[in-house]
Amino acid sequence: MTIETDLHKIEHRIAHLVRRHLADDDIAIALPLRRIADLVTDQAVESSKGGKRLRALLALAFFDAALASNADAPTLDADAPNAAAPAADAPAAATSGNATLAPGTDRGTMLDLACAIEVFQTAALVHDDIIDESPLRRGRPSAHTALTHVTNSSAIGRGLGIMLGDLLATESVAIAEHAAQRMTNDHAVIEAFLDMHREVEVGQVLDLGVEMTPLDDPKALADASLNVFRWKTASYTTIAPIRLGLLAAGMDRAEARRRALAIGVPLGVAFQLTDDLLDVTADSHRTGKPVGGDIREGKRTVLLADALAAANPDERAELIAMFEAPRRDETQVRRAIELFIGGGASERSLERITALRDESMAAVEHWWPASTPSGRALAEVCERFVPLSRR
Amino acid sequence: MTIETDLHKIEHRIAHLVRRHLADDDIAIALPLRRIADLVTDQAVESSKGGKRLRALLALAFFDAALASNADAPTLDADAPNAAAPAADAPAAATSGNATLAPGTDRGTMLDLACAIEVFQTAALVHDDIIDESPLRRGRPSAHTALTHVTNSSAIGRGLGIMLGDLLATESVAIAEHAAQRMTNDHAVIEAFLDMHREVEVGQVLDLGVEMTPLDDPKALADASLNVFRWKTASYTTIAPIRLGLLAAGMDRAEARRRALAIGVPLGVAFQLTDDLLDVTADSHRTGKPVGGDIREGKRTVLLADALAAANPDERAELIAMFEAPRRDETQVRRAIELFIGGGASERSLERITALRDESMAAVEHWWPASTPSGRALAEVCERFVPLSRR
Repeated sequence: MTIETDLHKIEHRIAHLVRRHLADDDIAIALPLRRIADLVTDQAVESSKGGKRLRALLALAFFDAALASNADAPTLDADAPNAAAPAADAPAAATSGNATLAPGTDRGTMLDLACAIEVFQTAALVHDDIIDESPLRRGRPSAHTALTHVTNSSAIGRGLGIMLGDLLATESVAIAEHAAQRMTNDHAVIEAFLDMHREVEVGQVLDLGVEMTPLDDPKALADASLNVFRWKTASYTTIAPIRLGLLAAGMDRAEARRRALAIGVPLGVAFQLTDDLLDVTADSHRTGKPVGGDIREGKRTVLLADALAAANPDERAELIAMFEAPRRDETQVRRAIELFIGGGASERSLERITALRDESMAAVEHWWPASTPSGRALAEVCERFVPLSRR
Repeated sequence: MTIETDLHKIEHRIAHLVRRHLADDDIAIALPLRRIADLVTDQAVESSKGGKRLRALLALAFFDAALASNADAPTLDADAPNAAAPAADAPAAATSGNATLAPGTDRGTMLDLACAIEVFQTAALVHDDIIDESPLRRGRPSAHTALTHVTNSSAIGRGLGIMLGDLLATESVAIAEHAAQRMTNDHAVIEAFLDMHREVEVGQVLDLGVEMTPLDDPKALADASLNVFRWKTASYTTIAPIRLGLLAAGMDRAEARRRALAIGVPLGVAFQLTDDLLDVTADSHRTGKPVGGDIREGKRTVLLADALAAANPDERAELIAMFEAPRRDETQVRRAIELFIGGGASERSLERITALRDESMAAVEHWWPASTPSGRALAEVCERFVPLSRR
């Protein structure tokens, strides 16, 4: 199964699942209201497009890897549909340690569960863009912005945006629940999926808390911000995909959670640091967002904390004044980028990213050595989350 | 089991469940961010207080009634924990028709499921108040208003409000999922719970659509508005509680859905009509909302449609001008109430409510005759939804 084939399937399947769930025939809608319902369904499909699908790929990769180990481990039920996984991965099984594996899931069902994670991401981004008042997402108008245009009312556009996020969140659970019904670990999968929802939502709350933290203690700001990354980003970007992939393959709850945290926390935090670094170093064509967007919004990031820590007193005062102001103009955004890069904050971020990447890869290696096909496949997928780290 | 006892248990249990889920020890939060997390948890508990708990009572009543029928019907498993329900209800079983009943659920588990419906209601109201920009709910500051006061920022208050609604929605599913694990119809229960989420969310979208419908066709406005009530209100107020109560008692999916729709659609629509009527006739002490709040907000209700239909040309023009304006002052609100009542719209609403109530009660009677204890208990609970109907 190549990554390209999986990506194609995921994209197709997400569009199908989102439209199917929202345009339910059971929901008989009076004709004059049909238009607004269709508007929201179309926007749901539109907002679901164009992600990199890293989370779905990660879930599938860990599912495949666990099944490969599973094939070699003693199974309770030799007739289970997935007992016949590729024998080439047999060596990995030797390292599966105390994992207790039950009969698993077919790959099509796992694909749906992987898509459910992506649908949840879209739900979270729709609300995130409302909270941050972001006009753009993935280079196109954000959902509430598009809905504002088409209804000609910012109040109705925002209201529909809140509901669209709610609908997508509901559908993500419905897709996951439907997939889980065909899994041995059905309730463990649904619980893990809901844990993901909760952690992201708590993360967003904490993120708003960071916006209220003072700038005079860079160390405290960096720590708080890194803590937020664990909840806001690692939760659904890496921890949940890994955990869900392993649970779907039949791994027991405690072991799936242990591995997901060991690999997923550092990888997910490194991913967010990379995203923040790209915000000041990459061009907007690559990220789909304007350069320096976080600075323009005055976001309190680890990058800012590192810049404050590295700055001389004058520069520090300059940065604090800039970030405490209600808004920043283009000259200030450019000046902040200059201070972030020249002062070594971007370099410090790259060091943080590399250390976290290494920690994550060591955890992968512990359970799935690079000498095995599974180990190599996992390493390849994990590397996609940290394109900027040093080798 | 008296209703008072149930109400006490429900209230206590909701506070416990909401706090337990949100203050999960597994979520290790950096100290400077602890305050904002606590703020949101406290607001979640606060927003969960003070409902009439009609939905939870309805779910429990139908659960009890289905179990009573169940006890008399042939069961597949005589050792099922709930096989021994009160024999006094035996006559009801004769009318259970083609219901296929499987072994059920203990009442404590059902109580949690009933609480999950209430938690979802709170989630929906939190977002609803943001969309409508309502400062009050149940006579106290709405969630985003309270969070705006405490953070001293309307942007952060609204952002936290959106997340609080998301968190409560997640917890409602988590509570339902946890209860469902201990039920025979586990996946049917979770699916019905998610159907409820979806229907309310679609209903809110349609409700925003009604706000954009023109006022020159009162019949079309009344039809559209009644259609919205089925999705926005009946979905989670009556249909889902009945359906979940029956599923938890072990009734099969199709039969539970059929009964829930036959009884729940008219009852739920009657409930919303009552709520809208109370908005213009009751005092704010009773409803927890200022009198004429819907008029002040310019809401397009069935009451308005009936008033437009009954008005003479001058009054109709007056009402249309009033409701097409961006806002209405207190004199206009009083004048609209006068036209609603004097023109007979409130009388027409009372007729609608009474007809719908009768339709719902006839459906209850069909399956649970008033000659049985179950039938009497169900009728008593259903009447609570329509305090204004004519006897």
